[in-house]
Amino acid sequence: MLSPVRAGTAAEAATGDRSWLQALLDAEAALARAQARLGMIPQDSADAIASAARAENFDLPELARRARGAGNPVVPLVADLRGLVGEAGEDVHRGATSQDIVDTAAMLVADRTRGGILTALDRALAALAELAETHRDVPMVGRTLGRQALPITFGLKAAGWLMGVLEARERLAAVRLPVQLGGAAGTLSDYGAQGLDLVAAFAAENGLAQPDLPWHTRRTPIIDLASALGLASGALGKIATDVVLLAQSEVDEVAEPAAPGRGGSSAMPHKRNPALATMIRAAALQVPAHVQILLAAQATPHERPAGEWHAEWEPLRECLRLTGGAAETAAELLDGLEVAPDRMRANLDDLLKTVGADPGPGAAPELVDRALAAYRRSLG
Amino acid sequence: MLSPVRAGTAAEAATGDRSWLQALLDAEAALARAQARLGMIPQDSADAIASAARAENFDLPELARRARGAGNPVVPLVADLRGLVGEAGEDVHRGATSQDIVDTAAMLVADRTRGGILTALDRALAALAELAETHRDVPMVGRTLGRQALPITFGLKAAGWLMGVLEARERLAAVRLPVQLGGAAGTLSDYGAQGLDLVAAFAAENGLAQPDLPWHTRRTPIIDLASALGLASGALGKIATDVVLLAQSEVDEVAEPAAPGRGGSSAMPHKRNPALATMIRAAALQVPAHVQILLAAQATPHERPAGEWHAEWEPLRECLRLTGGAAETAAELLDGLEVAPDRMRANLDDLLKTVGADPGPGAAPELVDRALAAYRRSLG
Amino acid sequence: MLSPVRAGTAAEAATGDRSWLQALLDAEAALARAQARLGMIPQDSADAIASAARAENFDLPELARRARGAGNPVVPLVADLRGLVGEAGEDVHRGATSQDIVDTAAMLVADRTRGGILTALDRALAALAELAETHRDVPMVGRTLGRQALPITFGLKAAGWLMGVLEARERLAAVRLPVQLGGAAGTLSDYGAQGLDLVAAFAAENGLAQPDLPWHTRRTPIIDLASALGLASGALGKIATDVVLLAQSEVDEVAEPAAPGRGGSSAMPHKRNPALATMIRAAALQVPAHVQILLAAQATPHERPAGEWHAEWEPLRECLRLTGGAAETAAELLDGLEVAPDRMRANLDDLLKTVGADPGPGAAPELVDRALAAYRRSLG
Amino acid sequence: MLSPVRAGTAAEAATGDRSWLQALLDAEAALARAQARLGMIPQDSADAIASAARAENFDLPELARRARGAGNPVVPLVADLRGLVGEAGEDVHRGATSQDIVDTAAMLVADRTRGGILTALDRALAALAELAETHRDVPMVGRTLGRQALPITFGLKAAGWLMGVLEARERLAAVRLPVQLGGAAGTLSDYGAQGLDLVAAFAAENGLAQPDLPWHTRRTPIIDLASALGLASGALGKIATDVVLLAQSEVDEVAEPAAPGRGGSSAMPHKRNPALATMIRAAALQVPAHVQILLAAQATPHERPAGEWHAEWEPLRECLRLTGGAAETAAELLDGLEVAPDRMRANLDDLLKTVGADPGPGAAPELVDRALAAYRRSLG
Repeated sequence: MLSPVRAGTAAEAATGDRSWLQALLDAEAALARAQARLGMIPQDSADAIASAARAENFDLPELARRARGAGNPVVPLVADLRGLVGEAGEDVHRGATSQDIVDTAAMLVADRTRGGILTALDRALAALAELAETHRDVPMVGRTLGRQALPITFGLKAAGWLMGVLEARERLAAVRLPVQLGGAAGTLSDYGAQGLDLVAAFAAENGLAQPDLPWHTRRTPIIDLASALGLASGALGKIATDVVLLAQSEVDEVAEPAAPGRGGSSAMPHKRNPALATMIRAAALQVPAHVQILLAAQATPHERPAGEWHAEWEPLRECLRLTGGAAETAAELLDGLEVAPDRMRANLDDLLKTVGADPGPGAAPELVDRALAAYRRSLG
Repeated sequence: MLSPVRAGTAAEAATGDRSWLQALLDAEAALARAQARLGMIPQDSADAIASAARAENFDLPELARRARGAGNPVVPLVADLRGLVGEAGEDVHRGATSQDIVDTAAMLVADRTRGGILTALDRALAALAELAETHRDVPMVGRTLGRQALPITFGLKAAGWLMGVLEARERLAAVRLPVQLGGAAGTLSDYGAQGLDLVAAFAAENGLAQPDLPWHTRRTPIIDLASALGLASGALGKIATDVVLLAQSEVDEVAEPAAPGRGGSSAMPHKRNPALATMIRAAALQVPAHVQILLAAQATPHERPAGEWHAEWEPLRECLRLTGGAAETAAELLDGLEVAPDRMRANLDDLLKTVGADPGPGAAPELVDRALAAYRRSLG
Repeated sequence: MLSPVRAGTAAEAATGDRSWLQALLDAEAALARAQARLGMIPQDSADAIASAARAENFDLPELARRARGAGNPVVPLVADLRGLVGEAGEDVHRGATSQDIVDTAAMLVADRTRGGILTALDRALAALAELAETHRDVPMVGRTLGRQALPITFGLKAAGWLMGVLEARERLAAVRLPVQLGGAAGTLSDYGAQGLDLVAAFAAENGLAQPDLPWHTRRTPIIDLASALGLASGALGKIATDVVLLAQSEVDEVAEPAAPGRGGSSAMPHKRNPALATMIRAAALQVPAHVQILLAAQATPHERPAGEWHAEWEPLRECLRLTGGAAETAAELLDGLEVAPDRMRANLDDLLKTVGADPGPGAAPELVDRALAAYRRSLG
Repeated sequence: MLSPVRAGTAAEAATGDRSWLQALLDAEAALARAQARLGMIPQDSADAIASAARAENFDLPELARRARGAGNPVVPLVADLRGLVGEAGEDVHRGATSQDIVDTAAMLVADRTRGGILTALDRALAALAELAETHRDVPMVGRTLGRQALPITFGLKAAGWLMGVLEARERLAAVRLPVQLGGAAGTLSDYGAQGLDLVAAFAAENGLAQPDLPWHTRRTPIIDLASALGLASGALGKIATDVVLLAQSEVDEVAEPAAPGRGGSSAMPHKRNPALATMIRAAALQVPAHVQILLAAQATPHERPAGEWHAEWEPLRECLRLTGGAAETAAELLDGLEVAPDRMRANLDDLLKTVGADPGPGAAPELVDRALAAYRRSLG
């Protein structure tokens, strides 16, 4: 209720407690299947575990409370999963440690959420490309430090937005999400000579990348992901900031898409607020602080920290769902953005009265073409 | 599930979506009662509103989704509340703006959560005072940069913890939590000559302080609160950090209280982990970033920002519930902390072999007495 | 060169390397004087130390480099100071540890910088009070989410700014700045029975407060200071944000004071930029992150951390000089702020065309009076 | 003096005010040369400008103060440079805006600093590879949550450190650093049809990459750089954290390289402190907050923000010099790290007494080989 930017979005669903629980169970099931594939446990055990490993079989609030015992939810989860599978119980979680499961589940959640974020970014990109193309030559005022400066075109502004989102999309799509498997101290000690093969099989069963080395205390995958999300939320925040400013009453050059119940004010019926841009900005103001937590948590003691790892979970989730919510909200905003070329012209005329001669749009149209070409290249 | 430090705590309950919803409704009801008291609306309306303003009458997930329309939950909430009270509907939310309700509700939530945090801090303080007193003269190694330095006493260490929590408790208890009421642009414009009286009545009905001026874009109450919570989580984080270090196998001078299911490892049955301290540290690593968001959100445009205000809600909630969870967890940790004076002595003997003559505890005992005296003064 | 908000300000001078060096030396000299007063060292030694303890006697860049040996500048500083005072050398830094000197010096620097910050805030407050009074009844548009909402008065806007700065000033003035003295592990062990008396004398010689307990690993004074500076920079950032928005070409309701070389653009001679507000905003965007570092650094291991303490120095300095620079810049901005009531009127007329009837300023004038009364009370 | 981690390092020299000033001048000179190459200004002008554009010709402190006029140092710098070149003055800074010069200079500074950081990381990597190889099979205790868990090898620990630094080095080396050139509003308006060619020539003259589009309000290059530095400082922070913990008196498995004046204590001559690791940790605790500022500054208004851009300068510099200082310090630390296999063995024996049977090193040796193979691949 306090984070409307993500309410009802795909990112919210993909990062909820239920989705995390399912990802933890998926990781356990994948481990069992990988072990069965290598003959380390019977296939029947793996089947029983996979069949029991469904979120609806577990009491989520109770698990959360019991997580306090060990400081993480895997200990009670494994106990319950063992209970469910009966005699295959000893084949649950074999040789793994809690962090193997939580980290792998985090990558599963990230992978699943990323899909939706990329889809939303693609929608936003398509809308941006259309805005840039349609308004390639539409003159408007360029503003620096809030003051009217020189003419630009709205196409150029949209092209700048486009390039920002495009770069963020590329970074995010390129992030490698590996499984984590190391056992209690990162040596795969319970797996004998099969340890490295098991990591490969575990990666394959999860549909995730294979790490060079366990990364329980080398958080590169988390940081790569956080950095890409930080860039994406910033690129969206830039757009939203411009929309809010262009939608000011005195400027009035764009308006958010109208919809029933959208942008209403509880006190002033005459007002139409930039509600979508507001929510995107709220997300962009929060994500950097979550990235900060993740960056700082890299300095982890020994083979598992007492706190730094545990401090990652919520910020990583927030990075995913705030950025995902912002991306979906931006797609909605840009899809129907109302642009007012006449107001742009009128404001520009005010500037030209001051400046005198019209310096024209410079290379703005060619720059728009460049951005569109980069976008088209990205489509393959 | 991803934040065990607060799972099942009073702070979690007091800051959940349902508690926020109730606080929003309480603010609406208090506004109506205050207006009735001043003769601005009929008492019957106020009664009808108060009676309808119960969280269980509302569809929380649906409200959260509809909050996307205006970027905040008050617009759909007011619509539903009006629907519930029938003809008194026009007396709901009279002259108020969404921010009046959200900010006042935030103060109500803060006030209610603070009660529980102070109670937990008081438990922690009592345990700390006992630790300091009991071990006033128990010698142990003082360590700087991780290296054994000079003797201290465990009582002195506990006294330092005590003073930190005591100061944080005092700061937190002293934070003034005012209602917010200003109407659409902060001028109380719909209330005519009764505006200032209404603010006073609204404060009284909510049991909150009366502000000098509406604070919709002057966020002092938020920052005062955040600063106190940041200090408190840091003071608790200091204790937890020391406990983790003292509980290291090679040091082994303290252990967390044993309990069934506590401190277990999913991979190593022989291990007993400092799970409580780990959770406290995880909270202490996150709170500063949330405070950062709140500090940065002070630079709000005009009479209401498009984003900065909306970015406050989750971080404020996180500050409250992480600190509250940490406080409750610390009370649990300190209540049963196992102290091993013999191990302290043995480690100290190792140091004294290097140093030669024993420099003794210095003023440690007197410093303990000072801390205890300060604690006792605080009890009144 | 990269932080013009503080270039040439009092806060910059008071926080520069030379001022820090002098504060370190002042702390050493105060320690010697306090010890002489208590008969712990000869008065001649104290005199020799005090007379040698002048920054110009030391090679600052070389000290900075030698600080790498111990990770802090006190070790080489003490060596050099001993060299300077000859046979009184053994009375230098008696029983103290590096942290005693650095922390006390930090409080001295903070105290000296605070004086200038308060002076600048007082200038800003006087200008704000005049703005609020002069424009008490000057109508203008109130804007929420960037859209015109309802009438306010410019006096009310200035009154809101005033209250924000006033509250920040009060918090900052109230921060207690104590000396730190504990010796190697916080037990005052080298001082025998005179330890507590020495702390009192040391506080008196430094003109700082006396702590209840050494605070080497209980960072309340740092956090109190950082919180107050975070509030102050935020209150100034709010003003600057409003000024930038009101100075937009399309709004044009205020302008920064004109001065030769002020607000120029390297590319557009026709432009006058809100350069002062820009610099203030730049500071307000940075201070919260520095506060975050300080808050996180509270979780210090044992009797001295290997990093957390060392990570405080630059952020604390930045909090002081960015806030101080912002305060001085704000005083300059507000002293000469050009207000355009006619533009305010014209923009308001645009709104009233949409709204219909003029709802008037509501309680704005009374609220201005309240703020002015609070300001006057603060003057005593 | 307050940041010993970088005192005297290459990163400090490369990021100092003088280096920034020279980079600003280099950018102006490169612009003139590029314009001369395209026939836009006479070659004589370009030569005169290049010859005048030397830092020693300018009064740095005075420039810093005059930067307050426009909020950035380029306006007074251009005035002085024009003064120096006489009649070629009108060919200085043609068609450029301050941000073109500052952003391009930032990339020059980043590029020059990056060289030194990569060199230091390479030294650290070589030392790490040797540590991993030498101690590939040296058994030691793996520790989780501070408690002894299972055997690992010191080679595996070093291999984990190696992979972290290796990944960070790859990310940092891959960051693309483009020039910025857009003119007052990003349209290259003063350059007519030659705008895009000029950008290419400007990039070539600076030895930097050519951007697809001006990036004055699309801060991808800044964020790419900040993210890589955040990862690098975290990877170094992880190493330093482990070193501090392993160097604890009670563990005593590694020691920092001994050197005259290194690791001394001002109060305890018997102590040898992990001073290098302490400084690295201090850097790693600060960099994330600076990255946070840069991430948040992405949400820039219009064609140039009033504050967000200006807030980037110091944090970017701090990211560069703290990470560079940490890298150089880490190289020094790792080059001479003293490892005590006998202490590792003794501590492990303590654990094995508890656990019973020795589970052995698992796949640790093979994992070391993998890390070494990845390192060797990176050498090409």
